[in-house]
Amino acid sequence: MMHKICVIEGDGIGKEVVPATIQVLEATGIPFEFVYAEAGDEVYKRTGKALPDETIEAALDCEAVLFGAAGETAADVIVKLRQILDTYANVRPVKAYKGVKCLRPDIDYIIVRENTEGLYKGIEAEIDEGVTIATRVITEKACERIFRFAFNMARERKKMGKEGKVTCAHKANVLKLTDGLFKKIFYKVAEEYDDIKAEDYYIDAMNMYIITKPQTFDVVVTSNLFGDILSDGAAGTVGGLGLAPSANIGDEHGLFEPVHGSAPDIAGKKIANPTATILSAVLMLRYLGEYEAADRVEKALEEVLALGLTTPDLGGNLNTFEMAEEVAKRVREE
Amino acid sequence: MMHKICVIEGDGIGKEVVPATIQVLEATGIPFEFVYAEAGDEVYKRTGKALPDETIEAALDCEAVLFGAAGETAADVIVKLRQILDTYANVRPVKAYKGVKCLRPDIDYIIVRENTEGLYKGIEAEIDEGVTIATRVITEKACERIFRFAFNMARERKKMGKEGKVTCAHKANVLKLTDGLFKKIFYKVAEEYDDIKAEDYYIDAMNMYIITKPQTFDVVVTSNLFGDILSDGAAGTVGGLGLAPSANIGDEHGLFEPVHGSAPDIAGKKIANPTATILSAVLMLRYLGEYEAADRVEKALEEVLALGLTTPDLGGNLNTFEMAEEVAKRVREE
Ligand SMILES: CC(C)[C@H](C(=O)O)[C@@H](O)C(=O)O
Ligand SMILES: CC(C)[C@H](C(=O)O)[C@@H](O)C(=O)O
Repeated sequence: MMHKICVIEGDGIGKEVVPATIQVLEATGIPFEFVYAEAGDEVYKRTGKALPDETIEAALDCEAVLFGAAGETAADVIVKLRQILDTYANVRPVKAYKGVKCLRPDIDYIIVRENTEGLYKGIEAEIDEGVTIATRVITEKACERIFRFAFNMARERKKMGKEGKVTCAHKANVLKLTDGLFKKIFYKVAEEYDDIKAEDYYIDAMNMYIITKPQTFDVVVTSNLFGDILSDGAAGTVGGLGLAPSANIGDEHGLFEPVHGSAPDIAGKKIANPTATILSAVLMLRYLGEYEAADRVEKALEEVLALGLTTPDLGGNLNTFEMAEEVAKRVREE
Repeated sequence: MMHKICVIEGDGIGKEVVPATIQVLEATGIPFEFVYAEAGDEVYKRTGKALPDETIEAALDCEAVLFGAAGETAADVIVKLRQILDTYANVRPVKAYKGVKCLRPDIDYIIVRENTEGLYKGIEAEIDEGVTIATRVITEKACERIFRFAFNMARERKKMGKEGKVTCAHKANVLKLTDGLFKKIFYKVAEEYDDIKAEDYYIDAMNMYIITKPQTFDVVVTSNLFGDILSDGAAGTVGGLGLAPSANIGDEHGLFEPVHGSAPDIAGKKIANPTATILSAVLMLRYLGEYEAADRVEKALEEVLALGLTTPDLGGNLNTFEMAEEVAKRVREE
């Protein structure tokens, strides 16, 4: 079956890591139709819109979206796209790969970040001169669906030999109503999954545990901004943002993007690490039901990382496209 | 001069680490008057109040407060005390000590956390069934004083040979008004300190940088909840909460406490690490102007840590009071 994918390279290194990843996707032999669309600073400067209507239409019309990075306009582009596509679960794997400097070799868990509410609702006001407020929104409905998503994911992982555990991170001791609700609904949903363990920590403690005992986690679920902060820290424990992929998943749409930004300082030099985007494409392949191809790409990438056939940030001496070609070659040969 | 100190042991291991620290304080030879007061779960169970009025009075009446830990009632006790004492700066040193497993040996920076507003204002509501909100408050006034505090601290540290840099962490790309204000005031205050460098990062990136480049920081300043989350992660990079001290500083009052909680799982066993509380006492001694004694205690503690004369969590085989006595002995001998 032909997969129709909306490709948004965006700004800066997005223009390098995305084409490099397409190279790998084409090596799988799966038939893709790539529909290119624009978003970010460049199109904003040209047209006054960081996220043009045609891009929204293309994103809504395709089976999945592969996104690179946006510059200054990132929040306007990506937060809006997540909302428009109603991709309520932001899935961020945290995994140690051989050949990459990690805190421990046995780190392998998934952060599931609620992707639609919390402080990302965009409700702010200046209520007096020099007095500003933002509104953090937590609803039972959004809690229920994100927790079900997390428990279902833990169940899938359990089938593959993982522990079968969901850890909820919140700040219910201080945010008694909003995170009180978050925690209450977590344990309510947990009751439906008696094959899966459930535990909870305060977000501050959790931010320490990703450093002091990351090997104990399986699926970690948290609210929007906490997930934003926690997942960057977690990325730091397994080699940094150059390796951190993400999937934004909803009932109708999927949007796949590296966690890193447009990195203007290295843009155009072809030294950006394509790993995060290739791993995001692996998540996309699984979303599309192309499990065999997903495994093939991940295995090829693991080999390339272990052999040190990497960009300079990981100690290698290949450029972005050469590293991607090392992966693509192995994907073709398998 | 006699120093009158309000001592609140609180719950759990607070009853061990605080007396152990008093042992060290007394070894300095400085005359103290310790005024004992209660707070936490135990007094709550007995009287219905986690923070009795007499405790508030004692705290307001003394030169400084030394606080241990509270259990379930921690938020009600400590957040309230910080507000009542108007201790607007929460100072959390992040420092690698020899003998302690740290990410790097050259970590030495201070997190300054705004301590009075943000999401800690306690403004929450259930606006419909299953729909809850919390209000994050950022004011120009609170920003100005916390940034001045941070820049003054960087100036003091520069005199001791540090870089002289303040790093501001925020999320102004998403929280455009509240953190827009936070960032704007940061650079406004920075202009008054042209001898000190100023830089800013998004809080998510910052949470990675405390892992990937902690040696580059000097003074880090951020809002209340971000500071809460960031400082626990930072503690994880230098040995965990057993070593993380804090000072809550205002114009009139100072409150000193370990970052850790009451640790009910190990309470009563005398195995709790007293280091965080002893280091909090070092911060208190500096606040009281007892610089020579502060240096003496810190040096003694450094020696004890380097020699492995520690509690089991750090690999030693001493109990809480034996470890404190090793410190006290060296303080007396100097
Ligand atoms: C660019 C920014 C709006 C975004 C976020 O805050 O979600 C980014 O940090 C991320 O984690 O994907
Ligand atoms: C106990 C809790 C209310 C407190 C906080 O959130 O400030 C603690 O986590 C801290 O960091 O001192």
